[in-house]
Amino acid sequence: MPDLWDIEKIPFVGTEKLEQGLGFRYYQPERTVAGKPMKEWLRFAVAYWHTFDQRLTDPFGDGTAQRPYDKYTDPLDLALAKVDYAFEFYQKLGVEYFCFHDRDIAPEGDTLRESNARLDKVVDRIAEQQKATGVKLLWNTSNLFTNPRFVSGAASSPSAKIFAYAGAQLKHSLEIAKRLGAENYVFWGGREGYENLWNTDLRREQDHMARFFHLAVDYASQIGLDAQFLIEPKPKEPTTHQYDFDAATTIAFLRSYDLVDHFKLNLEGNHANLAGHSYQHEIRVARAAGLLGSLDANQGDKLIGWDMDEFPSDLYETTAAMWEVLAEGSIGPHGGLNFDAKPRRTSFTARDLFQAHIVGMDSFAAGLLVAAKLHEDGYIENLVAERYASYTHSALGTGIEDGSADLASLEQAILDVPQSELLAATASDHLEAVKATVNNYIVAALN
Amino acid sequence: MPDLWDIEKIPFVGTEKLEQGLGFRYYQPERTVAGKPMKEWLRFAVAYWHTFDQRLTDPFGDGTAQRPYDKYTDPLDLALAKVDYAFEFYQKLGVEYFCFHDRDIAPEGDTLRESNARLDKVVDRIAEQQKATGVKLLWNTSNLFTNPRFVSGAASSPSAKIFAYAGAQLKHSLEIAKRLGAENYVFWGGREGYENLWNTDLRREQDHMARFFHLAVDYASQIGLDAQFLIEPKPKEPTTHQYDFDAATTIAFLRSYDLVDHFKLNLEGNHANLAGHSYQHEIRVARAAGLLGSLDANQGDKLIGWDMDEFPSDLYETTAAMWEVLAEGSIGPHGGLNFDAKPRRTSFTARDLFQAHIVGMDSFAAGLLVAAKLHEDGYIENLVAERYASYTHSALGTGIEDGSADLASLEQAILDVPQSELLAATASDHLEAVKATVNNYIVAALN
Amino acid sequence: MPDLWDIEKIPFVGTEKLEQGLGFRYYQPERTVAGKPMKEWLRFAVAYWHTFDQRLTDPFGDGTAQRPYDKYTDPLDLALAKVDYAFEFYQKLGVEYFCFHDRDIAPEGDTLRESNARLDKVVDRIAEQQKATGVKLLWNTSNLFTNPRFVSGAASSPSAKIFAYAGAQLKHSLEIAKRLGAENYVFWGGREGYENLWNTDLRREQDHMARFFHLAVDYASQIGLDAQFLIEPKPKEPTTHQYDFDAATTIAFLRSYDLVDHFKLNLEGNHANLAGHSYQHEIRVARAAGLLGSLDANQGDKLIGWDMDEFPSDLYETTAAMWEVLAEGSIGPHGGLNFDAKPRRTSFTARDLFQAHIVGMDSFAAGLLVAAKLHEDGYIENLVAERYASYTHSALGTGIEDGSADLASLEQAILDVPQSELLAATASDHLEAVKATVNNYIVAALN
Amino acid sequence: MPDLWDIEKIPFVGTEKLEQGLGFRYYQPERTVAGKPMKEWLRFAVAYWHTFDQRLTDPFGDGTAQRPYDKYTDPLDLALAKVDYAFEFYQKLGVEYFCFHDRDIAPEGDTLRESNARLDKVVDRIAEQQKATGVKLLWNTSNLFTNPRFVSGAASSPSAKIFAYAGAQLKHSLEIAKRLGAENYVFWGGREGYENLWNTDLRREQDHMARFFHLAVDYASQIGLDAQFLIEPKPKEPTTHQYDFDAATTIAFLRSYDLVDHFKLNLEGNHANLAGHSYQHEIRVARAAGLLGSLDANQGDKLIGWDMDEFPSDLYETTAAMWEVLAEGSIGPHGGLNFDAKPRRTSFTARDLFQAHIVGMDSFAAGLLVAAKLHEDGYIENLVAERYASYTHSALGTGIEDGSADLASLEQAILDVPQSELLAATASDHLEAVKATVNNYIVAALN
Repeated sequence: MPDLWDIEKIPFVGTEKLEQGLGFRYYQPERTVAGKPMKEWLRFAVAYWHTFDQRLTDPFGDGTAQRPYDKYTDPLDLALAKVDYAFEFYQKLGVEYFCFHDRDIAPEGDTLRESNARLDKVVDRIAEQQKATGVKLLWNTSNLFTNPRFVSGAASSPSAKIFAYAGAQLKHSLEIAKRLGAENYVFWGGREGYENLWNTDLRREQDHMARFFHLAVDYASQIGLDAQFLIEPKPKEPTTHQYDFDAATTIAFLRSYDLVDHFKLNLEGNHANLAGHSYQHEIRVARAAGLLGSLDANQGDKLIGWDMDEFPSDLYETTAAMWEVLAEGSIGPHGGLNFDAKPRRTSFTARDLFQAHIVGMDSFAAGLLVAAKLHEDGYIENLVAERYASYTHSALGTGIEDGSADLASLEQAILDVPQSELLAATASDHLEAVKATVNNYIVAALN
Repeated sequence: MPDLWDIEKIPFVGTEKLEQGLGFRYYQPERTVAGKPMKEWLRFAVAYWHTFDQRLTDPFGDGTAQRPYDKYTDPLDLALAKVDYAFEFYQKLGVEYFCFHDRDIAPEGDTLRESNARLDKVVDRIAEQQKATGVKLLWNTSNLFTNPRFVSGAASSPSAKIFAYAGAQLKHSLEIAKRLGAENYVFWGGREGYENLWNTDLRREQDHMARFFHLAVDYASQIGLDAQFLIEPKPKEPTTHQYDFDAATTIAFLRSYDLVDHFKLNLEGNHANLAGHSYQHEIRVARAAGLLGSLDANQGDKLIGWDMDEFPSDLYETTAAMWEVLAEGSIGPHGGLNFDAKPRRTSFTARDLFQAHIVGMDSFAAGLLVAAKLHEDGYIENLVAERYASYTHSALGTGIEDGSADLASLEQAILDVPQSELLAATASDHLEAVKATVNNYIVAALN
Repeated sequence: MPDLWDIEKIPFVGTEKLEQGLGFRYYQPERTVAGKPMKEWLRFAVAYWHTFDQRLTDPFGDGTAQRPYDKYTDPLDLALAKVDYAFEFYQKLGVEYFCFHDRDIAPEGDTLRESNARLDKVVDRIAEQQKATGVKLLWNTSNLFTNPRFVSGAASSPSAKIFAYAGAQLKHSLEIAKRLGAENYVFWGGREGYENLWNTDLRREQDHMARFFHLAVDYASQIGLDAQFLIEPKPKEPTTHQYDFDAATTIAFLRSYDLVDHFKLNLEGNHANLAGHSYQHEIRVARAAGLLGSLDANQGDKLIGWDMDEFPSDLYETTAAMWEVLAEGSIGPHGGLNFDAKPRRTSFTARDLFQAHIVGMDSFAAGLLVAAKLHEDGYIENLVAERYASYTHSALGTGIEDGSADLASLEQAILDVPQSELLAATASDHLEAVKATVNNYIVAALN
Repeated sequence: MPDLWDIEKIPFVGTEKLEQGLGFRYYQPERTVAGKPMKEWLRFAVAYWHTFDQRLTDPFGDGTAQRPYDKYTDPLDLALAKVDYAFEFYQKLGVEYFCFHDRDIAPEGDTLRESNARLDKVVDRIAEQQKATGVKLLWNTSNLFTNPRFVSGAASSPSAKIFAYAGAQLKHSLEIAKRLGAENYVFWGGREGYENLWNTDLRREQDHMARFFHLAVDYASQIGLDAQFLIEPKPKEPTTHQYDFDAATTIAFLRSYDLVDHFKLNLEGNHANLAGHSYQHEIRVARAAGLLGSLDANQGDKLIGWDMDEFPSDLYETTAAMWEVLAEGSIGPHGGLNFDAKPRRTSFTARDLFQAHIVGMDSFAAGLLVAAKLHEDGYIENLVAERYASYTHSALGTGIEDGSADLASLEQAILDVPQSELLAATASDHLEAVKATVNNYIVAALN
């Protein structure tokens, strides 16, 4: 294979040199951490749309990206060449998974039949490369938001014809998922929301979305596709409100429409922030509902109100995310860490693509190391066990949890307890010390 | 009754004078609008905690409120006197409902037994006044957030003893609800959330909250209390995250814990904004789930990140809220508009209490008039019906809605449709004209 | 002239019909309001980049815009045809001003010389059309942000070569301003900011920006260009921080670099919101500094964190903006209301361009009518005069204002004044009534 | 001295134990870092109002604080006892500075004369303790915001009488500053702003504020007070807009009113966030203007819209802040790090006061160590020097900076340069690597 990217396979270099370059400081795929190789905890995936298609535009600027395949002019030639570049990229970077949107890998035709035909040619090449390299498909999805036909939604479009188109496009994507052995299939409803409530039948639109998901479930069953279905919440952007606002909202939807057995959640840090939450919050909410499916790895800037899709570098966030993953036992039944992230528009060289992924992978590997040390010492577990001990170590507490208490028995227990005794039942959380202890673990685990 | 407030009964004055004074421009309780008297559509309630207890403090300032009962020094004398002032206020203002927190109407004692005894004395006075005046209790609630014992939660407290206390306090509040004929009973979980996830067992805390709600349901059933139970969502403040974040999150909770048949939602404009939503959005989400219970009437400043609890004056917001109410047929089975609002700290006179309520009542009465005119013309209804017509007027659309379509049939229908035909199936929403039309209705309906 | 837009000249239709269509309800250019024709108060301008170039893309969607000139394929043919469509649009709409960016009206060449040559051809056509129609140039500007060469700034670029390019591009824009009789010249520093402080020499970048502005002042003087220079603040987007954050920040910059005599401010509602301010705030701050230059007319959604550039329809905002303008006597020495606004992506027809401008024009005309009625009655003026009366009607107050008081004399005056007397010196602001009174004026003035 | 706090002097314990306790891991006052003892770089100060007066209330909760001096019932006894506790606290913690508001240390009387008398008694005790312990006053200030008389402002009050009171109160505070040897004097204008623009004469209020500051300058000169005057920006809370919004706004004010030679800025992390900025941004802006005066050490939660005043623990923020300080040479001529921070309401024990300060001090000491290592290696300096090299190493660049270039010469230099050459003049910033390198320095410097 020609050295298309003009960059060698990324080595492990360790922590000696402080200036970050093209080498891993923490990520060693085969190193065992908390009982599993790092690569099994992390299951990194590269996102086709950002890494190979993103031109680094912004609302006020043309694309700055400089890519080795910029020389191709024919759209299909370019699409096929990009597949080769992509798989070389995966191997040089050392990731074993990738993700893609259908419309990102092949140009659309005038009809769905033509689009499918073009898509299949690129899928053929992907299938060959998967076989040749062993790189696997973490998940694929349908792009049901870019084309102007989806201007007012896909599954929630006010036009039945557009709903039908979306369903038909989905059908082919599910077939591709089956063919390429996708471990998950993701739904991101970028247009499933409203611009304005005055002209929106919210209930009907949500009914249609539920219908769409049930159609997907039925067809997957029909063709024997066993990929885990995932919904990726995002609160707003591009619309003013999206129905899959956050984890909790999506859970309400899944429960209301009898879909909770068929779907889990794919959660992203930047989307969490846009909904007013931390990444850890979204993961915890999904865990509490038994619905953690997979993770999109990126970060935002909490002072910025749009989707930044930065590569993760904040060790507080990666530590918290990986702590949740360790507590859960895995990211999800088939989940991984997909870099739904792009280099800054000012990081426009091909080298930056490698550099940015290395930073992201190292940041999550570092988070894993810190989380593993925290777990090993049981620091958080002990803190929590002690905090809620009255529910496990007192008759009053166990009675509440086992359902034997009622309001009358609680009243009887508490009616004459003076305030001083009640205050004595509360305990300081010493959160300042907890935060500093997390700092201490970060520093200690990364040396 | 002595003229304690030194203000006459608030008259209807109409729209002639432009400067707002102590008279209603739009609110006429008996005027029929959309088939019902205004007062039945609106069911205004005064909030005890804001109107009679709020000293107009802020985090950097002492209270500025000047109240006629400031002369009382004994806490219980003050509590009883305030009841009389309150009922005089309701009558002079012309509202038929009020709401209260238990700890706002009477000072706590050292034990719950003592607190209950003091509370009962004030409740006696309230019962007398209700009987004398005909003013009714829209809802009451337990204050499970102010006392330091609730520092880390009530139903979600890590201490079983505090949970027990909260349950016992709730028990007495439910008994009071029964005694005073409350039409609803509200739960606002101001401390049911977390300060930090590291020391929080989120799942366990939510289990405990669900337990708490089930205990309430059981006890209400036991004592024959038929008030509608309501949960009031708020995303944050005082904690960094509250479990009843918004309508959708609360729906997820109710469905997950088999509580959806026993609870509805009490929604507030300012809380909606803090969660990143419009007031109309929260009402619509509740309506779509059949869970609209009642409304807290206030407004925030969307550029401000804390709870302002302003009296409503924004006609866009009151129009949208009342449009939803008209579309629903009522605010909820037993709902009303409770002014969870306080005058600005700079509006510190007793007169401002009247003035602020008048503005709030007039603003909602105005919203009702605008909404009624919109409904009468069917402007929004027609817009929406036309927008989704393809689901009711085409075989493709009805097949999607009735479940007869599957992905294969949709593919067949759409596989060879060219892009131009797909684009033709989309329609401009002309939202700019829709917004201007709402302006036009506001101006026209209010003259 | 062929009826290119297939729409007639927009008529005045008045307020009879409630549904908004292609006619003005309030805007009558020649109607005298507060002593001047409406059109002189408002001086509406159409923004070339949004109205004729904007394809209605968003970060997740391709353009949906349907325009009559979509048939042109040659870039220069298209550019020239658009000029004709634009002037027809101005005339049918009845606006007398327009604004443009250099790169929006003509395609760039490989060198600046080539770009200038292409630009000049389009400018020739514009000059002809200005002469033929009497439509005038409110302002033009240089697009120093879209091309990848400006990836890290123009005047604040770390590359001297890019600074030089920006300066040279500016030079030609100033020459065009002179040639076309621009009344103002605007600088929007979309790339003049930072992505990250670690690699930024903030002081040096601001020095360079100041140098750039001084070069513009010198060259304008040299060629006899007397257009008013304006800076348009925006806090963020596309960068994480822009140096012209808001009005106050820009004033600090102008004063620090001795530029305050040469520049005024061009203020925009949506930019104000992104900086955490109301539109009225930004206008007021500029007025207080004597630096109100011109206005960009649009609105945002305060719950959304990016630039929406909605056409204005919020009557609260247009009333407040026009009240400030009336109090000032004009928008600025040469200012106008430029619609830096685009139809929603769902309003994609050519008709929506007219519709959206009509809504914007009517909303500002309505704001003018309300503001004029407020001024006529002196409602706000009296409120304010009374509030600060102690500074004009007491010796204590005049002594503070005229500088004769010092801390010792103030102490002497106040040392033994009891708290009750101090509290009596404060007065309730009754802001709830003030807000309601503004409502009342809106309704009354628009009937 | 009796062991009032029941806690020993806080020792240095080093990094061995990971769980944070009552010992310093990084802070060693006499350790030389970057040429100076740590304590000279950091100059920590304890804030009286938070540490000794804050009851840990919030808008929905009563105070939870448990303090050893809660036993005192007489206000003046309590005030005097607190002084002793405070100085013992300083010594046990090992800080050499403190800060206070006048109204926090002594209860107000009915007149200013009475308030001054009470205040002086407490100041006597403070003076004794300063002498006995060597602890110094970093700054004091007047509380011109808590008392209801300041409901609408102090220097910006619409009442001349309140302005006069504020001036008189300030006078005595300046005298106290002189007496206690304050190194700075701070103005925080918590009420100097507006609730609503409709009733506000913004220009007049700012004129009055400027007058107030000039009066302070004059009186300081008169009494020979050489403390550095500082303004502390905060954008909002308690009002909807405060005039000292952020560093840049305050600079505009100082320059507009000829105050820039007499004032510098006191900047706070949480206030920065509320204005939409990072802490580093505010410090950098002040540095660029030569106006860095002092720092308030705390942190916010960027997803929260009110002032959290958390003790600093975020190593990214302390590293950035201390990097700026090292680049500047000191925090400011007389500046220090004042902990304007409070323990969480759930950290209510007296021990938490120590614990929280230790975390804050260690986090800034850690930031200093990281910043020193960055400086030592010149990592950031080299990055920046290289980035702007074209301004120092090319004739084009030096011509721009020395003012010899004009637009014509720039045009000549650039007119025929092709796009490819322009793009080659831009360089990738590799920001992902920069962020990761900062991570690496944090880990390396703290082991």
